[in-house]
Amino acid sequence: MVSFSHRMEKVTGSAIREIFALLARPGMISFAGGNPNPKTFPCEDVAAITAELMETCGGAVLQYGGTAGLPALQESVCAYAERKGIRAAPEDVVILSGSSQGIDLVAKILLNEGDAVLTEAPTFLGALQTFRTYGAEPAGVAMDDDGMVMEDLEQKLQSTGAKLIYTIPSFQNPTGRTLPLARRKRMVELAKRYGALILEDDPYGDLRYAGQDVLPVYALDESGETVIHLGSFSKIISPGLRVGFAIGDRRILRKLVIAKQGVDVHTSNLSQAIVDAFIRSGRLWPHIKACRAFYARQRDAMLEAIERYLRGKIRYTRPDGGIFLWASLNEGEDALALFQKAVEANVAFVPGTHFFPDLSGKNTLRLNFSMCSPEMIEEGIRRLAGLM
Amino acid sequence: MVSFSHRMEKVTGSAIREIFALLARPGMISFAGGNPNPKTFPCEDVAAITAELMETCGGAVLQYGGTAGLPALQESVCAYAERKGIRAAPEDVVILSGSSQGIDLVAKILLNEGDAVLTEAPTFLGALQTFRTYGAEPAGVAMDDDGMVMEDLEQKLQSTGAKLIYTIPSFQNPTGRTLPLARRKRMVELAKRYGALILEDDPYGDLRYAGQDVLPVYALDESGETVIHLGSFSKIISPGLRVGFAIGDRRILRKLVIAKQGVDVHTSNLSQAIVDAFIRSGRLWPHIKACRAFYARQRDAMLEAIERYLRGKIRYTRPDGGIFLWASLNEGEDALALFQKAVEANVAFVPGTHFFPDLSGKNTLRLNFSMCSPEMIEEGIRRLAGLM
Repeated sequence: MVSFSHRMEKVTGSAIREIFALLARPGMISFAGGNPNPKTFPCEDVAAITAELMETCGGAVLQYGGTAGLPALQESVCAYAERKGIRAAPEDVVILSGSSQGIDLVAKILLNEGDAVLTEAPTFLGALQTFRTYGAEPAGVAMDDDGMVMEDLEQKLQSTGAKLIYTIPSFQNPTGRTLPLARRKRMVELAKRYGALILEDDPYGDLRYAGQDVLPVYALDESGETVIHLGSFSKIISPGLRVGFAIGDRRILRKLVIAKQGVDVHTSNLSQAIVDAFIRSGRLWPHIKACRAFYARQRDAMLEAIERYLRGKIRYTRPDGGIFLWASLNEGEDALALFQKAVEANVAFVPGTHFFPDLSGKNTLRLNFSMCSPEMIEEGIRRLAGLM
Repeated sequence: MVSFSHRMEKVTGSAIREIFALLARPGMISFAGGNPNPKTFPCEDVAAITAELMETCGGAVLQYGGTAGLPALQESVCAYAERKGIRAAPEDVVILSGSSQGIDLVAKILLNEGDAVLTEAPTFLGALQTFRTYGAEPAGVAMDDDGMVMEDLEQKLQSTGAKLIYTIPSFQNPTGRTLPLARRKRMVELAKRYGALILEDDPYGDLRYAGQDVLPVYALDESGETVIHLGSFSKIISPGLRVGFAIGDRRILRKLVIAKQGVDVHTSNLSQAIVDAFIRSGRLWPHIKACRAFYARQRDAMLEAIERYLRGKIRYTRPDGGIFLWASLNEGEDALALFQKAVEANVAFVPGTHFFPDLSGKNTLRLNFSMCSPEMIEEGIRRLAGLM
């Protein structure tokens, strides 16, 4: 029998994906997922755009393309990013097969066996897995209600010598927390001082339901060399198309493009051309506005239900956007035990421990509000409360 | 400034892709590419299928999917592969973002730093690059007109201890050669004896213009454990969609799926659903037949032009399929020098040396016949002959 490479020994399948297999049961109310709601998907636009593309430039769209992406989409991404306060030229943009490909490629080009990577604790599980694939060792930085704590970040930069900081600064997965402007500026300063690169992952930034936009970390670094910004169209157009992007220093992006050549040659041109047309035709911004209104109702429903049924039983975040909120049971209580009871009662969430690099946080859990109607959210929270 | 990982030090951009940048000049007749001809792309079908998909199941197609691929497409791939003599269940299939992603993922899960990989010499440049990304060391096995020479393969298996054999057995890139059945059987025997896995890359197998089909190497291994078969829809539907697949042992595929999770989560669902519908509706086989007729004319035109203008000046292969033929100048002559003169005369090919793991083959070159009309092929070969 064949033996596998050392690099795969530390990597097992996503714990979360295995949980999901349990949740297809009829009657289940699931707060476990992280999917956008299919009711927000622009199906008619995709059909209309594809028809037009195939008539006007099908030969080019169905042909091989450049690894860095369709030049038209690189331009459209600049226009999109500019509205977030990011100034970039098309040459500063690489189109990716989903923004999580950017985590993989940045890890591939930067990290050696044994390198430390600093992340929020808790953080996106997929990122932890990816860093481990390259033999790197994720170390968690403490968070408070305003996200990553800068004093702890500085201390960990000193103690680990990490050369990469991975952050989801807006409506973070799994906590829903947002890093304020002052901390973002401080993060850039610290990264510069300790010679680290910041990998800013921003898949949720457009989904704001309250409060004011905060500039991306990338926009706060005048040198343009300290931050790689990852963006995604998964939550605001469609994840099934697999289109995201990286914006950053050209020297780093050149290496990233070389790594991507071997990985998938380029991202699906049809997916890229659809996203480009969606942006270029002016559909994206009204669509984001509609998505915000849609998800805001569900966030409000979840906060109201928690207030009604779980007041005093859990602590929880009140996210201004995104698709998750984060809850803590009392110290010493076990969210995994609650999860097992919950699944029997046809309601689900994700136990929080998996999101911590050191598997701490046994009393925490993540609640997603993107997939259920306000009525189902209320019913699900009511069921959960009955178990506690 | 940031420093890159050790694994990327051995990898530079594709030499071929840099050559391509020179070839956009008007009037250039290029035999350098490896693209399918856009005249073969089913643009109207793609538009019609997408319209239907968006109307009937847009919410599912635009949503996240499973990493192994859309179950419907896994089934359709089985039906497609069965016509080549491969018996597989949907669970034996993983959908990939192009078959070259399979090279990357197999390398990732199997190869450690310093491992040897045996390949045909010459072979697909992208595969050489990918193996090097994982610190593996490609070693070339000698070829004759019937492809890889089994005596040399056995000797190299002994001397290198390689645990992976990478082969393109049908209409090989870059030579156009096809490994006969007896050698395929022998390759399986040798792999078993020396404990190696065979990675069979078959992007061109359907494009046969003469002779009889030969069973895939995968179909010759009763254990199902010795061969991973990679297939692609790039040459027979569209490369821009980025859809390929792996068929193989489930234990290996499970690991491959875990590796793919971190790389791109899954292949574009829209691309997958389009390919599935194209197969399921019965369009694929007539389409392949039309592609064969289309490319056969161009292959014939190239062979006739070579016979007319270059007889006695070069040795060359007479491929029964695919999109390439392979030529050798006299011993001691330099194909790179010819290439430079050729580009000035507005005709291009790829110097062969890049395709050899050891950069030998200075007098060799690859000629592609998929992109030019018969008339342009004749003119291009005439120009080449004028330089020799």
